[in-house]
Amino acid sequence: MKKLYTKGRASIEFDSPVFFESCASITGPKEGQGPLKDCFDAICKDPTFGCDTWEAAESAMQKESAQMAIGKAGLSPAAIRMVFAGDLLAQTIASSFGIAGMGIPFYGLYGACSTMGEALSLGAMTIAGGYAEHTLCATSSHFASAEKEFRFPLGYGNQRPLSASWTVTGSASCILGQTPPKETHPNSMPLRKGSCCAAITGITTGKLTDYGLKDSLNMGGCMAPAACDTISQHLTDFGRSPSDYDAIFTGDLGYVGKKILIDLLLAKDIDITKQHQDCGILIFDADTQDTHAGGSGCGCSAVVLAGYILPGILSGKWKRVLFVPTGALLSKVSFNEGDTVPGIAHAVVIEQKEV
Amino acid sequence: MKKLYTKGRASIEFDSPVFFESCASITGPKEGQGPLKDCFDAICKDPTFGCDTWEAAESAMQKESAQMAIGKAGLSPAAIRMVFAGDLLAQTIASSFGIAGMGIPFYGLYGACSTMGEALSLGAMTIAGGYAEHTLCATSSHFASAEKEFRFPLGYGNQRPLSASWTVTGSASCILGQTPPKETHPNSMPLRKGSCCAAITGITTGKLTDYGLKDSLNMGGCMAPAACDTISQHLTDFGRSPSDYDAIFTGDLGYVGKKILIDLLLAKDIDITKQHQDCGILIFDADTQDTHAGGSGCGCSAVVLAGYILPGILSGKWKRVLFVPTGALLSKVSFNEGDTVPGIAHAVVIEQKEV
Repeated sequence: MKKLYTKGRASIEFDSPVFFESCASITGPKEGQGPLKDCFDAICKDPTFGCDTWEAAESAMQKESAQMAIGKAGLSPAAIRMVFAGDLLAQTIASSFGIAGMGIPFYGLYGACSTMGEALSLGAMTIAGGYAEHTLCATSSHFASAEKEFRFPLGYGNQRPLSASWTVTGSASCILGQTPPKETHPNSMPLRKGSCCAAITGITTGKLTDYGLKDSLNMGGCMAPAACDTISQHLTDFGRSPSDYDAIFTGDLGYVGKKILIDLLLAKDIDITKQHQDCGILIFDADTQDTHAGGSGCGCSAVVLAGYILPGILSGKWKRVLFVPTGALLSKVSFNEGDTVPGIAHAVVIEQKEV
Repeated sequence: MKKLYTKGRASIEFDSPVFFESCASITGPKEGQGPLKDCFDAICKDPTFGCDTWEAAESAMQKESAQMAIGKAGLSPAAIRMVFAGDLLAQTIASSFGIAGMGIPFYGLYGACSTMGEALSLGAMTIAGGYAEHTLCATSSHFASAEKEFRFPLGYGNQRPLSASWTVTGSASCILGQTPPKETHPNSMPLRKGSCCAAITGITTGKLTDYGLKDSLNMGGCMAPAACDTISQHLTDFGRSPSDYDAIFTGDLGYVGKKILIDLLLAKDIDITKQHQDCGILIFDADTQDTHAGGSGCGCSAVVLAGYILPGILSGKWKRVLFVPTGALLSKVSFNEGDTVPGIAHAVVIEQKEV
């Protein structure tokens, strides 16, 4: 019997850290006017990214973030053994026509807005198990392709309830590797500051959690129970308390979901009020940007991770964070057939490592 | 630096075999009248599986195959560390409302009809890396939900060209584990015959392959280039020839795709005519069942694996097979926007092991 790295019911603790070699983020113009505007690698003024359709725009953005991340790591696409990627669209076409076309062995994922958590989890297992030298984890979302996919035509101009979130137009890619990143040539920009690196040390795999909500314009409410389940499972599995983390970032619960999450966890005697931040709240200024409950979409937690969280870990702002992207497993077919909107959340422990 | 188990550009060779602990298959009535009718664990006479919608029918079928596989392995759902599952529907709702609801940590996949190959690859890496004791790999497809998702309403009664395939109504689940399966109680039915077991010893991860075909009613043609790429990459990576395999099973190329695959490989001086079989050709009798090019869908290769290939490995019919599920990354949006239909195929080496 081989050694097991499992921990508790749903977690894994790696015996050696899996390093972030690089990361890259690209967003649309609205995200480029928000509070995190100085964090992203690129902000495209044109939300079509020069393409004819919203889906092609999302694919272009995803490919661009992947190419940037590969370049920043000082690698070529041929050095990447596997890509883990997905998006929100039916049959994940943003990825099929985006990153999947780069000629790299490809595993397509569907985890709704939790995709970056799923990709990092699988990417880290693959690296830690010795099955890849470098993996690329990527995702994207686009406001216009998501509205078309899930809600109303943009031209219809429907009114959005205050519980609705605004899908982030953005894509981020991360390169994971076994060894600490290093500068290979003057143009590379590895994710390293002196001897400080960012690394994944553990994960908790989410379970589908369904409290019976059916409101596709209240994604935060649908996903909060899943975030609660994953965070409490994580703390139990690792025998940790919230104070063992400098910050706990959920993906895109927004203002509505954040309140529900805090309340649900308090009912389990877990208080994360001091540590909790939500990527969907961080990315937009709700007062001036008319984004109601906050940002959402696969791209939301992904660009906040690449643009804000990982740099903050390098700079010593946080030594250990729990990154918990949250997804709502909604489709227009299941919605129209009267089904609920179940949620899922995957947790990734990211730590500062001196090397 | 940890030991790497990578092989060539896109392959992994496991240092110890990953065992199939059990498998289970369930199909609809049409599959239950085909040449493999005696192979499946269950054939449901009612294609709605007692549900109100086609999507719910597919979910019910998927849950049933998972429960059967868990039971046959003599396990409980709580013993399964992770599920890897996906399906063809937008946002993989057959899985979200099927297997994902079983309370097991869940990774959702999208690989179109290659999903069983993707699930087995990731499930095997997880087991071999020591990240799980038992993983459940599952997928499904349903003729009616797939026609609704991708083509025409059934009531429209459109005429199908001879290159069209017939989506298999079926679901299969496999349990993978580190150690050879054993009978734990009289009701368990582990995948074992005396000292013979079936195990995964290597994988080759597919790359997206796009020859520019746009015909959503010729999936075999769209996927054959991907199967060719994965099979030739696999043989190169492992330094093997087709004769090192007793059989090479592609997923659902059908008659049209089979011919293209054989021709494409012959152009690379690889002759698989003696070894090649296609699950889509095996599952239906095209002459009497009006299935044109053959069977297709995630469920096609999955139920043929569980019902026909794995039992054949146990019985000694084949000692080593290459299982290559093939997927066409099509969506109605990308189709309507004039995009191509790219293909992907993942290869899994399955061998008979004496334990």
